[in-house]
Amino acid sequence: MSLAEKTCVPCRGGVAPFSLEQSQALLQQLQEWQLVKNHHLQKTYSFPNFKNALDFVDRVGALAEQQQHHPDLHLSWGKVSIEIWTHKIDGLTESDFVFAAKCDQLAARS
Amino acid sequence: MSLAEKTCVPCRGGVAPFSLEQSQALLQQLQEWQLVKNHHLQKTYSFPNFKNALDFVDRVGALAEQQQHHPDLHLSWGKVSIEIWTHKIDGLTESDFVFAAKCDQLAARS
Repeated sequence: MSLAEKTCVPCRGGVAPFSLEQSQALLQQLQEWQLVKNHHLQKTYSFPNFKNALDFVDRVGALAEQQQHHPDLHLSWGKVSIEIWTHKIDGLTESDFVFAAKCDQLAARS
Repeated sequence: MSLAEKTCVPCRGGVAPFSLEQSQALLQQLQEWQLVKNHHLQKTYSFPNFKNALDFVDRVGALAEQQQHHPDLHLSWGKVSIEIWTHKIDGLTESDFVFAAKCDQLAARS
């Protein structure tokens, strides 16, 4: 099963964040995402104008509500930057990589 | 006429950005906006959840398209941070303060 086909699992805390090795292994299944300090995933998507970028924010926002996994989103003219991590443990879990893969899927459809 | 009643004017460049004195004078007409390095205006709005914050991003986004003046928006769970400046001159003009006042008006209506 690909990452994008999985579902984000609510983190109740009490689990260890991914080790660097675990993060790097799953990162290989993502396209052009950056692993930042083994704390969060980051990617910037480009769009031809503000409206298209805002539309993408809306689609990622709907996904966040559906998955109950909420990224940080930075919207500027023609760009959307996404940061994903599991706030409950202030680090990375599989759900973060699942969410990243789903963002790529949304971008591919736009 | 209040700032919120004015309209953002497209900046074609070729004008000087506001001096610190000009910025501080108009800042007094805004509520809780920060003047950062006399380069941009910044304010963070709080919301009870992600959905309400996303709704505000949509309303500010629609305003940006209407006024053809586009801020940077940072959305996280229950928070929206807005940064406004005039990109063409990499500094502040009256339109930035007008846009800030209109954001406050939108927030008051939500």
